[in-house]
Amino acid sequence: MMGNEELKVKGIVEECAIKAKAAARQLAVTSEAAKNQGLIEIAQALELKSQEIIEANREDMEQAKSQGISGALLDRLLLTPERIKAMAQGVREVAALPDPIGEVSDLKIRPSGIRVGKMRVPLGVIAMVYEARPNVTVDAAALCLKAGNAVLLRGGSEAYQSNRKLAELISQALRVAGLPHEAVQLIPTTDRRSITALGALDQYIDVLIARGGEGLMQALAGATVPLFRHGKGICHTYIDVDADLTKAVDIVFNAKVSRPGVCNALETLLVHREVAARVVPAICQRLQEAGVELVGTPEVQALAPNVGVASTEDWGTEYLGLKLAIKVVSNLDEAIEHIHRYGSLHSEAIITENYSSARRFLETVDAAAVFVNASTRFNDGSEFGLGAEIGISTQKLHARGPMGIRELTTTKFIVLGSGEVR
Amino acid sequence: MMGNEELKVKGIVEECAIKAKAAARQLAVTSEAAKNQGLIEIAQALELKSQEIIEANREDMEQAKSQGISGALLDRLLLTPERIKAMAQGVREVAALPDPIGEVSDLKIRPSGIRVGKMRVPLGVIAMVYEARPNVTVDAAALCLKAGNAVLLRGGSEAYQSNRKLAELISQALRVAGLPHEAVQLIPTTDRRSITALGALDQYIDVLIARGGEGLMQALAGATVPLFRHGKGICHTYIDVDADLTKAVDIVFNAKVSRPGVCNALETLLVHREVAARVVPAICQRLQEAGVELVGTPEVQALAPNVGVASTEDWGTEYLGLKLAIKVVSNLDEAIEHIHRYGSLHSEAIITENYSSARRFLETVDAAAVFVNASTRFNDGSEFGLGAEIGISTQKLHARGPMGIRELTTTKFIVLGSGEVR
Repeated sequence: MMGNEELKVKGIVEECAIKAKAAARQLAVTSEAAKNQGLIEIAQALELKSQEIIEANREDMEQAKSQGISGALLDRLLLTPERIKAMAQGVREVAALPDPIGEVSDLKIRPSGIRVGKMRVPLGVIAMVYEARPNVTVDAAALCLKAGNAVLLRGGSEAYQSNRKLAELISQALRVAGLPHEAVQLIPTTDRRSITALGALDQYIDVLIARGGEGLMQALAGATVPLFRHGKGICHTYIDVDADLTKAVDIVFNAKVSRPGVCNALETLLVHREVAARVVPAICQRLQEAGVELVGTPEVQALAPNVGVASTEDWGTEYLGLKLAIKVVSNLDEAIEHIHRYGSLHSEAIITENYSSARRFLETVDAAAVFVNASTRFNDGSEFGLGAEIGISTQKLHARGPMGIRELTTTKFIVLGSGEVR
Repeated sequence: MMGNEELKVKGIVEECAIKAKAAARQLAVTSEAAKNQGLIEIAQALELKSQEIIEANREDMEQAKSQGISGALLDRLLLTPERIKAMAQGVREVAALPDPIGEVSDLKIRPSGIRVGKMRVPLGVIAMVYEARPNVTVDAAALCLKAGNAVLLRGGSEAYQSNRKLAELISQALRVAGLPHEAVQLIPTTDRRSITALGALDQYIDVLIARGGEGLMQALAGATVPLFRHGKGICHTYIDVDADLTKAVDIVFNAKVSRPGVCNALETLLVHREVAARVVPAICQRLQEAGVELVGTPEVQALAPNVGVASTEDWGTEYLGLKLAIKVVSNLDEAIEHIHRYGSLHSEAIITENYSSARRFLETVDAAAVFVNASTRFNDGSEFGLGAEIGISTQKLHARGPMGIRELTTTKFIVLGSGEVR
């Protein structure tokens, strides 16, 4: 039996979804110029109402502080005039990207006489569930709109006041631009059951993008709306026997240290036994100087000081911080086997000058992005040339790797006939 | 609490899935020539062991007759030497199709210096749950193998003996060709709980293709493996005010009568009011002569004899037989609105000589395939030029419309660097 409160939450969410579906039908046939005008209005509104946004954000910040939140988490939540300006600039960049909608590909004449092609069209209604950072609200709205989709945003409770203000400004801007203002809606509750409710509304919502941890996944167990999961990144770099060891040290250092809290950061280093003695000490020293805690197998411990014991659990852990696990392996096969066993299909790299090893690693390793002689930190929509991204998918269906505007669309077959029957 | 029997079923299914995963890793790096050799061995085995297949099929046929199954359903189950020959021929045709695996697209040099491209790779392990027809066993195995995937087949209980024999022959043929024989496995139980068990094994299975009705969907509620649903086809044809009425009659007749039991057959006809008097009588007469039962709105009933009353329920019904619902509409907008309200996103057609109406219908109607002046019966992998198909998807993600070999693959990003860091 559903409680009254639960029914109420479901009702609120369903009402948003119904409005979003109607807005999506309208947006699907909106011209590129009109969508871009909407985006430019949004950018302007963010800048003009910067002060209002900061005031709303202050409420969230005070609430967070009173709950004892501090450090990096608090900083993620904070909005400043500069950050708002950057958000507005991001929206303008999305407006400048090419519009994929309406593009027809593979049009060909079939023996029956019919002309068959694929037309790129929006997905429809996208639901997005995410955590604290309020800039995601703006990024997601801009990308979804550009691809002709309506979007239902369910942000974290920590950023609720900021998100509410941002969504309100976006809706107003859409109205000014003559677009359906219900194309972007913030779900007006942070009740956890609203996430489960979103996941059940497959008659209105075409896909749900889930950016968050285990709790979020639990709320979505049994969802009938297809999910894009933002998987975690247990990323490896393998230093091959034929590696250029100077490159190896630089790449490993960059992959671990440049931004350790993100999903494309390095978590486990694998080193070929024959080069371990020549490269492990240098890597360990450089990482330790940067404050990285190291754990490793006994062979690694024998090569460098202050390396802790790596337990089996370490191999499956996404540290998201200044910690690295190191293992010595016998060959490329053992490295690939380790990656397939413990990796999360995110970003995997080999450092080698050997053509055959590079080729085999590229073809064999099953991950969203596979690298030769480069830092896994490059797994990013902008670095890959897709423009802004709405997330990095570690699933295999529909979208794998950074998801840009194109991944927020689908195709339909179009058939141009002149009376053909079968 | 799980019963002993349920645990046993889960154990059986999991064992198959673990073996399939290992086979998939091997197949993913198998050459095109070796995969094709496997397919040719399969085709030969089917022909050589035709008699064994027919004997196994006889057991299924006798069982079905004893359960009172008859007519079209019994015929779907029957295998004959000719049908087996056709199955073998189908496998040879799949072998002759181009292999998409390993293809790299969109390779470009980024400002950072890295080269980024997308490599086409197999999905991995595909589970396929389907109903009575045993030829699906062979088609699915061939298509999955060609795309480098392992496949777990869970056929209907009616065809169990036939499927078991077919799967056994396929496995033997794979072994002869030096390929992993566990790349094709029939789940060795028809216990309904095996379907639910498949849906829960997301650590081994990459996608589950569900071809079946509501009962199947219930067994898969809560599945964590992503699903490809074979949606039903509530397909419409709209005769516009500017239609060529001769084409209209031919197309409607073909769409309804040529094969009424399939998903791309016509179920509801929409006719513009201004041409209704000129076209409805001719269509009704021709359909009634072919034994089609008609239901319609009062306007339709006034134009032709022996037309029943169409209730609201008719608009949402997939008859899958010789029955058609007919409605008169005021204009293109009303037709599109009706389609969006009652259609199942499958195949939708407009008959018109008007350029703007055709264009608007093509761009606005949200379905897997949208037709101008052609029969919806063309929605088919072979007619669209994709080669054999494993089904027609009415969902929007990953694959929409007929699913051929390409839709059984995914991509991964590959990054070729020379020491780049970020």
